[in-house]
Amino acid sequence: METEEFGSEIARRVIRPRPSQSHKGNYGRLLLIGGSENFGGAIMMAAEAAVSSGAGLTSVATDPANLTALHARVPEAMFMDIHEQARVLDLLKKQDVILCGPGLGNSPYALELLTKLCQLATPSQSLVLDASALDLLAQQPDLLSLIKAKQVVLTPHQMEWQRLSGIKIPDQENVRNFQVLRQLFPKRNVILVLKSNHTHVYDATQERAYLNAAGNPGMATGGMGDTLAGIIAAFLGQFGPSLDAVLAAVHCHSAAGDLLYQDKYLVRPTEVSAMMPKLMKRYSNE
Amino acid sequence: METEEFGSEIARRVIRPRPSQSHKGNYGRLLLIGGSENFGGAIMMAAEAAVSSGAGLTSVATDPANLTALHARVPEAMFMDIHEQARVLDLLKKQDVILCGPGLGNSPYALELLTKLCQLATPSQSLVLDASALDLLAQQPDLLSLIKAKQVVLTPHQMEWQRLSGIKIPDQENVRNFQVLRQLFPKRNVILVLKSNHTHVYDATQERAYLNAAGNPGMATGGMGDTLAGIIAAFLGQFGPSLDAVLAAVHCHSAAGDLLYQDKYLVRPTEVSAMMPKLMKRYSNE
Amino acid sequence: METEEFGSEIARRVIRPRPSQSHKGNYGRLLLIGGSENFGGAIMMAAEAAVSSGAGLTSVATDPANLTALHARVPEAMFMDIHEQARVLDLLKKQDVILCGPGLGNSPYALELLTKLCQLATPSQSLVLDASALDLLAQQPDLLSLIKAKQVVLTPHQMEWQRLSGIKIPDQENVRNFQVLRQLFPKRNVILVLKSNHTHVYDATQERAYLNAAGNPGMATGGMGDTLAGIIAAFLGQFGPSLDAVLAAVHCHSAAGDLLYQDKYLVRPTEVSAMMPKLMKRYSNE
Amino acid sequence: METEEFGSEIARRVIRPRPSQSHKGNYGRLLLIGGSENFGGAIMMAAEAAVSSGAGLTSVATDPANLTALHARVPEAMFMDIHEQARVLDLLKKQDVILCGPGLGNSPYALELLTKLCQLATPSQSLVLDASALDLLAQQPDLLSLIKAKQVVLTPHQMEWQRLSGIKIPDQENVRNFQVLRQLFPKRNVILVLKSNHTHVYDATQERAYLNAAGNPGMATGGMGDTLAGIIAAFLGQFGPSLDAVLAAVHCHSAAGDLLYQDKYLVRPTEVSAMMPKLMKRYSNE
Repeated sequence: METEEFGSEIARRVIRPRPSQSHKGNYGRLLLIGGSENFGGAIMMAAEAAVSSGAGLTSVATDPANLTALHARVPEAMFMDIHEQARVLDLLKKQDVILCGPGLGNSPYALELLTKLCQLATPSQSLVLDASALDLLAQQPDLLSLIKAKQVVLTPHQMEWQRLSGIKIPDQENVRNFQVLRQLFPKRNVILVLKSNHTHVYDATQERAYLNAAGNPGMATGGMGDTLAGIIAAFLGQFGPSLDAVLAAVHCHSAAGDLLYQDKYLVRPTEVSAMMPKLMKRYSNE
Repeated sequence: METEEFGSEIARRVIRPRPSQSHKGNYGRLLLIGGSENFGGAIMMAAEAAVSSGAGLTSVATDPANLTALHARVPEAMFMDIHEQARVLDLLKKQDVILCGPGLGNSPYALELLTKLCQLATPSQSLVLDASALDLLAQQPDLLSLIKAKQVVLTPHQMEWQRLSGIKIPDQENVRNFQVLRQLFPKRNVILVLKSNHTHVYDATQERAYLNAAGNPGMATGGMGDTLAGIIAAFLGQFGPSLDAVLAAVHCHSAAGDLLYQDKYLVRPTEVSAMMPKLMKRYSNE
Repeated sequence: METEEFGSEIARRVIRPRPSQSHKGNYGRLLLIGGSENFGGAIMMAAEAAVSSGAGLTSVATDPANLTALHARVPEAMFMDIHEQARVLDLLKKQDVILCGPGLGNSPYALELLTKLCQLATPSQSLVLDASALDLLAQQPDLLSLIKAKQVVLTPHQMEWQRLSGIKIPDQENVRNFQVLRQLFPKRNVILVLKSNHTHVYDATQERAYLNAAGNPGMATGGMGDTLAGIIAAFLGQFGPSLDAVLAAVHCHSAAGDLLYQDKYLVRPTEVSAMMPKLMKRYSNE
Repeated sequence: METEEFGSEIARRVIRPRPSQSHKGNYGRLLLIGGSENFGGAIMMAAEAAVSSGAGLTSVATDPANLTALHARVPEAMFMDIHEQARVLDLLKKQDVILCGPGLGNSPYALELLTKLCQLATPSQSLVLDASALDLLAQQPDLLSLIKAKQVVLTPHQMEWQRLSGIKIPDQENVRNFQVLRQLFPKRNVILVLKSNHTHVYDATQERAYLNAAGNPGMATGGMGDTLAGIIAAFLGQFGPSLDAVLAAVHCHSAAGDLLYQDKYLVRPTEVSAMMPKLMKRYSNE
């Protein structure tokens, strides 16, 4: 099975000048769920990435311990106490995109909330599952087949994918990956973003595999994945649920990192977010 | 009824070099009321906008959950616990401008406080009503006719105006808008800033309508309205309560966004605030 | 009585290149006392100014409500709960400079602490009294004559000086000001920095008056005085207690503001602090 | 005994371009322990330095009072409540490098935790002991000889070294320092970074002494040592436990300060951290 390399051309296709007749509702309502007391930074970085990538309205359901730092960093984000389940589920209904996982942790409550999310997401919504959410699903993978969301995006790194798919890292080849995706998602409504130093994207609908041509080892630092998840969520909300939106998000994340890497030995995740508005402008003009 | 377009000329007229013989008391005492536990970022962004636009002294009555992030972002702002009603109402007396609404939420207490505000604001004060305050007033529109403030500024987006005025969005035309404003404000002490991708300003006193020529779709993001409200409050405090001050504020908000939009695909509200000192300097020199 | 104008020459004289053989202990141990729950930003801005102006070691005794925002802004500052009186007074002993007042408020406890401070400050310490501290002293001016500190610096604006001195603003002339200073400080160990759009500095020892030639109306905003107090404290700690250090601090505060005012309509206090390292470098090289 | 001067050549040797085939696990798992309620800024600055110097994954065990400011400044860092001892010790096992001390304070619990750390650190781990940790060890120096870690790095300033070694500051010469190091560390698994305006590094294995050629008096400010400790920890995690990694870290810390000192009279610790990515890039390219 062939793997197609993708680069800036997909970003130029997806990121078009915004129409004058538009308002914030046109750029996606996002709910980000994650951030336990120990891993609060993850959901903040995801929110920072989403807002910096053009999301129209961003809400964050997280542990109250994270409220203040979230607002100090990203005042645009609205806050919801993750433990107020009824309110979170009510908020869920009004969203275009739900991102679940960054810093969520693996508490029983986290699993309970994720289960509800899998059950309740509707065919008009997109779902991005990242980090802790993937580890929780590794414990209960049947949940995945229940998801009715129009588009599911999984964003594991190789070890997370091993735990979820049962495929050992050296064996994570196209054929095996698609095999497991078909089992997990009989409806094939899934895109797998398998993060590594050469990130692959697998589109289960078309059974096609794509290779990210951009990126660099200066991005190998904690929080870079949370940032990618936020960018993907923002692109799905803004450009609609599609493979192209996911590919463009993966490319932009790496391309922003590459720009920074030109004169920095390492790239901090929040710098990638800060670079997004300029990078997107450039692509929209080309 | 004609609509007059306005642009930088109004900003150049309003924003004059500051006289040497002046102190912070000359540039307005502002009280900003808003920011529930869930929507704290809104009042922080409004405060950041007010301080960045030249307000002399800025106080913020908000939920204590927002104290720390407010100070981390805007140490110039003084804090008041919104639930200490007697102290808030006492502070109210000493203000030149009161902005109420960003992130306030629609709790019974919020309505109670807003009611007091409408009753207590004096003819030497200006009142900016935004966001949640407008939705609360939609439940009890008679409150508006009680307001004795010298100048009332309403800053709804189209859906908020629909809820308050009863006019559906496609029908929000000049004649209908003025009709409702006359009913709501028999004293005609009101300016309506009707936010959309082509923001209109309605001056009830003169029954004249104005169209904002600046702005761009990169500004379509949560928090942009809170920022505008903060700028309007700062301009009223600094340049005195007048139609011109409101028009200049609306223009500057959009013009700052336009400058940023030149090389950014999206504009974050706090960037607009950060741009204000330079933009105002430029206009004051022309 | 003549008033002598001062400008950059005093800063060039005071701010000399640091000797290679030195450590943080050589640049002053500072304790800043202030910041109630309502006025926390004031003490943060003072601490930011002190650290940015070269203080060696900076501690802040403040309300615990301000701990987190202080650290988010100024991680260099050490924290002490202002309500732990014994520990605060113990910390006091090890300081070169104590600044008391920004955002302190006028609670009975604030007065109690200030009283102890006036009694306990030793002839090897300098004391800067600002804002709330001055209003508290207006209630109990006899405290001032008890102060044994080597150098006392008062930094009122004109209204605070009226309350403390009993001299109405239009009557705040050199002769009257010195008269009251002699009464308040029989030991003459005081410098009065009388803030206005033309700040005057009065040296009680020599009975000479000085006029600040720098500054601009863009600096007329809340927090600018807290920033000045922090700079004065840092200069006393770094360059030793002297009139020259105070004059240099007053000049640098205004000169930093003037640089910013060149392309900004208003100057935020934290921008003045951020400008200090570059401005001081320039003067040290001249 | 001779002392060898070191400079940028060591940094150019240590800091090599990152291999493409790498992930965050390759750049070190770090645990930073410190930050009491009073000295929280110290551990934040150490974390900021570690993350900014390329650490792969950074966790911080600190007082909960510091959680929010830590995340506001360094969202990449994971948080652990220092008082949950079992969890801290469990986390300890998975680390490549443990830094203990910045802002830790000298409570009985701090000593208890430090004792466990000395006992539990394994021969595959590196240990950096700084600030409070050194003062606690001065009370119980026998602990040091128990440490089985592959590499121990001590980072005292001269007064801390006097308390720990018993050698008075004027007598801190090479021969005496090595004598005490041999007593404290019979296994000789230690590098002493003795901070002063001319920082010396002592390698107990080879019994060789090195002098830092870089640095300037603008760096004489609180927090600079915490920043150095964070950089050393990051370099050990990234470039492996070695004398060269420590020397490169000491040099880079000073060299970053020297770059900033060119146009600033004083250098803030967080500016040194912010400079690290560019400085490291430059060295990696040479």
